[in-house]
Amino acid sequence: MSKVSIPKGMRDFTPEVMARRNFIFDTIKKHFQHFGYAQIETPSMENRSTLTGKYGEEGDRLIFNVLNSGDFLQKADAAALANKDSNQIRPQLADKALRYDLTVPFARFVVQHQNELTFPFKRFQIQPVWRADRPQKARYREFYQCDADVIGSDSLLNELELLQLFDLVLSDLGLKDFTVKINNRKILAGLASKMGTPDRLLDISVSIDKLDKIGMANVKQELTQKGYSNQVIGVLESLFNINGDNSLKLNSLKEFFNQENEALKGIAELEELFTYLEAVDIKNAKFEIDLTLARGLDYYTGCIFEVQSNEVEIGSICGGGRYADLTGIFGLKDLSGVGISFGADRIYDVMEELQLFKDLPLSNSTLLFINFGEQEALYILPYLQKLRADGISAEIYPDAAKMKKQMKYADQKQIPWVVLLGEEEMKNHVFTLKNMESGEQFKLSFEALLKHLKMNWDV
Amino acid sequence: MSKVSIPKGMRDFTPEVMARRNFIFDTIKKHFQHFGYAQIETPSMENRSTLTGKYGEEGDRLIFNVLNSGDFLQKADAAALANKDSNQIRPQLADKALRYDLTVPFARFVVQHQNELTFPFKRFQIQPVWRADRPQKARYREFYQCDADVIGSDSLLNELELLQLFDLVLSDLGLKDFTVKINNRKILAGLASKMGTPDRLLDISVSIDKLDKIGMANVKQELTQKGYSNQVIGVLESLFNINGDNSLKLNSLKEFFNQENEALKGIAELEELFTYLEAVDIKNAKFEIDLTLARGLDYYTGCIFEVQSNEVEIGSICGGGRYADLTGIFGLKDLSGVGISFGADRIYDVMEELQLFKDLPLSNSTLLFINFGEQEALYILPYLQKLRADGISAEIYPDAAKMKKQMKYADQKQIPWVVLLGEEEMKNHVFTLKNMESGEQFKLSFEALLKHLKMNWDV
Repeated sequence: MSKVSIPKGMRDFTPEVMARRNFIFDTIKKHFQHFGYAQIETPSMENRSTLTGKYGEEGDRLIFNVLNSGDFLQKADAAALANKDSNQIRPQLADKALRYDLTVPFARFVVQHQNELTFPFKRFQIQPVWRADRPQKARYREFYQCDADVIGSDSLLNELELLQLFDLVLSDLGLKDFTVKINNRKILAGLASKMGTPDRLLDISVSIDKLDKIGMANVKQELTQKGYSNQVIGVLESLFNINGDNSLKLNSLKEFFNQENEALKGIAELEELFTYLEAVDIKNAKFEIDLTLARGLDYYTGCIFEVQSNEVEIGSICGGGRYADLTGIFGLKDLSGVGISFGADRIYDVMEELQLFKDLPLSNSTLLFINFGEQEALYILPYLQKLRADGISAEIYPDAAKMKKQMKYADQKQIPWVVLLGEEEMKNHVFTLKNMESGEQFKLSFEALLKHLKMNWDV
Repeated sequence: MSKVSIPKGMRDFTPEVMARRNFIFDTIKKHFQHFGYAQIETPSMENRSTLTGKYGEEGDRLIFNVLNSGDFLQKADAAALANKDSNQIRPQLADKALRYDLTVPFARFVVQHQNELTFPFKRFQIQPVWRADRPQKARYREFYQCDADVIGSDSLLNELELLQLFDLVLSDLGLKDFTVKINNRKILAGLASKMGTPDRLLDISVSIDKLDKIGMANVKQELTQKGYSNQVIGVLESLFNINGDNSLKLNSLKEFFNQENEALKGIAELEELFTYLEAVDIKNAKFEIDLTLARGLDYYTGCIFEVQSNEVEIGSICGGGRYADLTGIFGLKDLSGVGISFGADRIYDVMEELQLFKDLPLSNSTLLFINFGEQEALYILPYLQKLRADGISAEIYPDAAKMKKQMKYADQKQIPWVVLLGEEEMKNHVFTLKNMESGEQFKLSFEALLKHLKMNWDV
């Protein structure tokens, strides 16, 4: 066997896997377009300074930096080189870095092109991102994000549409049982305020985010270590004890936060969103207010979402939320937006586990002409051309190889139809068509062949 | 104005540009699939050692290297750091590099996955590549290649199909006048042999490649400097004086090379290829034997191609050729293949100059509902859902903004239809539909609206 390899955390995609991945991307793209989102793309490399400081300390560490071209050491600080101080030297060797997510480049794009865009600007973007994460199951160093965002509108109709997109896309992909968890950052801000530490929302969010993984007892311990009193932690606990369906939860929340205007605003937003949700048909999604949902990223300011499959345990497969001031980091203030992201790679894993790919066609070709030699090939070429012009994917085996080898090729590529056209067929102007699944063979004219294939191929 | 920017040679693609680029990619992809090519993707990053040494010295310099993560200086050679010896240090700081073309990763892919693939393996690949070239007009540091290759077959039917693909794709994109230049490396090898330096084919090719740019006089001077005698250079010149149509050229070539078996083999391949070409219909391509066509890459061994627009001067827009042993560099010997590449970015520039994009629709939405307020929005939502379920891209303006602002939005996004639905329409269950181009308005039921849009939208 060969010793060639690719870097860890990276993947090759064979034709079989590509067919499945394209099915996911095409489904997402179709629905994004039905909702009026327009596609953009940003370059793989951004200026390093565009990305650093936007994803927290951990994020900065995971950014892939691109080594400057040419004599990159020339301008590097000699003392830092001698000390082998990688952190100090990094910005001197790398002006550029690879895209870490689609959100920050999107914000940069909106600021840079603000005068060319029509607001509210509804864009979608399907591109790979790179993270120097420790590779593990379902975590890759290169993976695709599929994002839809609308920027320049406060309306909760936008949130509604994004929730509809979760439902439509995942249902179309064959998922039957999944939950969209919903919360609002204003409620969490109200909580921080009620806990007496309004400036420590992020701090509290980080702890809440772990509730799922480490449980209430450990979160309480962590908050104690962070200096919160038992009384204050009790407030938090009583919030998380709020139960019942969504409307019961909203009522309990209003009582709980009866003095906190910020939280009441968040509750009112959720009420409005649920009113909109009642006006539309939902296929399979379950919507659930989850007060423990915090989402780590600190730019969220309103509704936040996370989607989990209830059939496969794999973590969240989609996420999103509203940000009041994402473009502020690049100097364009007060442009509120909301967006979602489909995690295509995790969705792929869920679909594979649920065997949702099993009916997807593997082969690109509908028909293979067996190659009996140059004369037969020359006879076939114009017909092959006609089939393709009619939208039928068809091939001729390129070499006059042994029949067994050619049939094996059709078999392995799962090509459903094979045409045998030898001397006799040429003389009689007929085509011998073989059904590769049943083994049946029949002779027919080219017109009949074309009609037959189009009929079968439309199914 | 804002100061945000992207690295030089990189590009953002707005929705308008994306619609055009997707038209090009979709057209290429459709024809690749009709010919039975199956899509693969390889990772953006390869091991650095996979890429270095494959593209010549100049190529190596243009590869983008990815800085190792973490404390990347730790293992670097202290003396080389002190000397600021970038060339020595580079491999120590960067294990990974960005894809420079699609051909070398494809060869690596075939070797690595040889036991999973069905041969002859027909694959296509549409992905970006990166080169640290000096940015200039029509030369970018990130650009897409669109490649189709078949590997594991010697048959010239493969060459024929690739020539058909040039013709079909470019004609479908609207190009009317373009020339596919064809040569065969075996003829050039015969020439090197006839010049008395069979081992210096690459050397001679490099000079021949410049003929177009610097002219015969300068090429002769270069060859003189390389040590070739006047007599030998005269042989070269007499070859390039061969004129006439393709069949005349082939006859003259046979006389010229009457003793050189390698060259005669190349001539016979061209004759066979032209026999195949006569069996099929060609839309717009002109095929021309060009003995000065050399192509720089040294892995080509048989037929070579280059496509030029005769309407726009921009250099070659497509290229390709046969390689007898591409996978040999990774240890898998004797697997002959042939492939082509569409230069999507240059094709874009040609199409733009020829105004071939002018009829391409800009907007993703067919219809915009004007937003008169929450009650009207709630009334509209289920209808909006029905339109989208019927495949019609439709939006509601998210905010109850001033009518003028909403109409301006529809206008700028070139949305052709707008629905006005206020209190009166709600009461009477009608929709007021406005044609944005003509200004015409008419009232109709939802069923009539749906029918009307589907009719107009199918055109």
